[in-house]
Amino acid sequence: MFSSIDHAMMLRAITLAKNGQYTTTPNPNVGCVIAHGDEIVGEGYHYRAGQPHAEVYALRAAGAKAAGATAYVTLEPCSHYGRTPPCAEALVKASVKRVVCAMVDPNPKVAGRGITMLQQAGIEVQTGLLEQDAEALNPGFIKVMKTGLPYVQLKLAASLDGRTALANGESKWITGPAARADVQRYRARAGAILSTSATVLADDPSLNVRWQELGTEVQSAYPQAELRQPVRVVIDSLNRVTPQHHLVGLPGKTVLARKQADTQSWPQDVEQLVIKEGEGVDLPALMAVLAQNNIHHIWVEAGASLAGALLQAGLVDELILYQAPKLMGSDSRGLVDLNGLVSMDQVPELSVTDVRMVGGDIRISARVQAHIQTDILNQTKHKV
Amino acid sequence: MFSSIDHAMMLRAITLAKNGQYTTTPNPNVGCVIAHGDEIVGEGYHYRAGQPHAEVYALRAAGAKAAGATAYVTLEPCSHYGRTPPCAEALVKASVKRVVCAMVDPNPKVAGRGITMLQQAGIEVQTGLLEQDAEALNPGFIKVMKTGLPYVQLKLAASLDGRTALANGESKWITGPAARADVQRYRARAGAILSTSATVLADDPSLNVRWQELGTEVQSAYPQAELRQPVRVVIDSLNRVTPQHHLVGLPGKTVLARKQADTQSWPQDVEQLVIKEGEGVDLPALMAVLAQNNIHHIWVEAGASLAGALLQAGLVDELILYQAPKLMGSDSRGLVDLNGLVSMDQVPELSVTDVRMVGGDIRISARVQAHIQTDILNQTKHKV
Repeated sequence: MFSSIDHAMMLRAITLAKNGQYTTTPNPNVGCVIAHGDEIVGEGYHYRAGQPHAEVYALRAAGAKAAGATAYVTLEPCSHYGRTPPCAEALVKASVKRVVCAMVDPNPKVAGRGITMLQQAGIEVQTGLLEQDAEALNPGFIKVMKTGLPYVQLKLAASLDGRTALANGESKWITGPAARADVQRYRARAGAILSTSATVLADDPSLNVRWQELGTEVQSAYPQAELRQPVRVVIDSLNRVTPQHHLVGLPGKTVLARKQADTQSWPQDVEQLVIKEGEGVDLPALMAVLAQNNIHHIWVEAGASLAGALLQAGLVDELILYQAPKLMGSDSRGLVDLNGLVSMDQVPELSVTDVRMVGGDIRISARVQAHIQTDILNQTKHKV
Repeated sequence: MFSSIDHAMMLRAITLAKNGQYTTTPNPNVGCVIAHGDEIVGEGYHYRAGQPHAEVYALRAAGAKAAGATAYVTLEPCSHYGRTPPCAEALVKASVKRVVCAMVDPNPKVAGRGITMLQQAGIEVQTGLLEQDAEALNPGFIKVMKTGLPYVQLKLAASLDGRTALANGESKWITGPAARADVQRYRARAGAILSTSATVLADDPSLNVRWQELGTEVQSAYPQAELRQPVRVVIDSLNRVTPQHHLVGLPGKTVLARKQADTQSWPQDVEQLVIKEGEGVDLPALMAVLAQNNIHHIWVEAGASLAGALLQAGLVDELILYQAPKLMGSDSRGLVDLNGLVSMDQVPELSVTDVRMVGGDIRISARVQAHIQTDILNQTKHKV
């Protein structure tokens, strides 16, 4: 069905799409290549919300050469009039002969409409080429469109025996500088960084992206002037975060997820987000509200309590675990608090997708298997 | 100094040496290639203690063609009359022109004697080609010769958060069948498997090598008829192991390390090894006695207590850690008991040498950095 040229062109489109990975949120990363056979006549990618879509850049570059060409797009072209006219219409106007989409739009309400618009204009349309690779570009966008909940990456860091601090609390620099730079890059790709008031009170962290720490490879593709700060979301059910905490004054938006707002004077880019349901701050309700507020991809940096609560609520999609080559012993502090486990078949299971060295530390990426027991879920208190 | 032909020949000799990795103990693995230029005229390896050395097999295969040839040997040829005549003498008699050794003999008492014997006969000798690869063939032999203590590999298995069992003790099958087969291969290469009476009383394990579980690749090179059982060493300071325990009746030798012998009737291949020094069974003393008894390479499978005691006594060379893609929570049982840690600079540090997937589990290999604090060491009780 697809030729080797088709594969090469779509791979190129996927590579192009990644150029937007630090900037497009809440829009998806999309790449587009326009070609006659193996000759590329135009290419483009979406770089930032509000700016043109990938197809528009590629069509501009191709000009009159788009007529009779094949357009390779990593995502079904849009069919709606939003901040830009629909890309499907632009492809029709440019008289392309054939469109290959890696995947259809994940939003069930609009899926297939762009394809139909193209087909009605007599354009040959094929889908599904390198679909998994295209899906991997936009886990957050896809999950929100399909489920209404954001894609959640849980970052944890520990010794080889799963410990985060000695019994007396000492813990500085468990992982090395390469792992910390790696964390910066994950933060930079996320729509929000989620933490808790406990972490803020204990460490007074910045929870921001520091361009200087992204590394030269990322810096060369992501100029400092373009730097986007993910939203800082702090679960603060007891209103313990104050305007004096460090992250409140930093560039970018801060959301305090609370049971009720206080009347202190907060900077303009601090929002008190009141989550009424449940005990403490209800985690599923918070996630749904964040998704409604265009936060599709959440990077969690918090302690054992929130990590366990998110896992037992079935809200974690992926674990990113850094392991320092140390052993800290059974008296030291644990990595994840899980409640009510009495049998091994209640244990959260994961599937490892990647293991590699990051400097002298190990980084494990793993998908969470969705099989948390209902009775455990009901025992779990989402209070953080 | 060394040509590309020299490299290729020594690589071949190292590959040959590995054919003995399940059988030569307590002798080292050695390979030998005899060549004229890039033409191999004879090759061999040591297969089992009491059988001829690698050089003898290679010289037999080469016959008259050994004259004027270069002999590549992974270890300095022996110079002493033991169970076989010295290999250095055999090389001289065969009139080889040149000998290349990857490494000199690690035993300081005999190092260089074989080389001298060759040189005195007018043979050109060079050493140090692929030395690290050759050293990796025989970590146990080398460590015993240099220090009088065995090479200790500590096997641990846990969830991603470093847990071995739920709080109620449930733990069956944390790792998968591929990891368990991998453990069988490590056991099969070791001189002894070290465990504790606590493990024997809790699980009544076999602590043996099961040929059926070694996998087809190993089986094809290691016939069932050649199967060698590592010595089972059980630390049993309170004389709790009885003749009724499962491992006592299995083929192979069992050593019970005790404070004093009992007068029960034990099978002939069970030895009560009395270690007098220290409190409980003194671990450094035990290790020294095992080395004196030709046990060079120890594979430890035990609980958090022995693991921690060995680490804090500075007796562990390498950690082999299997991690199952599960999270078991902070209430679950820990991996390593370490005493008296109050500062991160007292924490045992390791250096990761290999990380890979074994089935669905992760296997981490790491060298222990020798920097355990003396004050911690003194606090540690070696009682197990």
